[in-house]
Amino acid sequence: MRVSADLIGYIAAFLTTAAFLPQCIKTIYTKEVSGISLSMYVIFVSGVLMWLWYGIIQDSLPITIANAITAALAIVILWIKIKYTYFR
Amino acid sequence: MRVSADLIGYIAAFLTTAAFLPQCIKTIYTKEVSGISLSMYVIFVSGVLMWLWYGIIQDSLPITIANAITAALAIVILWIKIKYTYFR
Repeated sequence: MRVSADLIGYIAAFLTTAAFLPQCIKTIYTKEVSGISLSMYVIFVSGVLMWLWYGIIQDSLPITIANAITAALAIVILWIKIKYTYFR
Repeated sequence: MRVSADLIGYIAAFLTTAAFLPQCIKTIYTKEVSGISLSMYVIFVSGVLMWLWYGIIQDSLPITIANAITAALAIVILWIKIKYTYFR
């Protein structure tokens, strides 16, 4: 039961991290940011950075790696959102 | 150290769950879905449902509750994305 629970957790972590890759690519190429919520990405990036901190102090490599990747992708989306909303 | 780590984890979970509320509200009211990645929400909802399953089999109430709320919000966004992309 433990092995299968761990496997489900790893698949879950992979999916919720990988999900931001197509959004990141789409946003980089289309710059279509009007439908994207600024509040969502500000709150989400804050949360993912807290998860990263949690992973580091808990010495959990899977949590640290997954959230470092998610943070990088979400920060790129947030950056393009801010750039094309306020500085275009 | 354990208490503060738990606190960081709870704040992180609250933020990454709450983040989807403004996106959900924005998408419901504006129906602006062209900048939202369909792939992101398909993969993300799959991942969050795996986290929900993980929370249930691990008997973890925080993981279960956080992912149930995130799943509900992300499914609404995904539903509106599909509806206004293919059936408008």
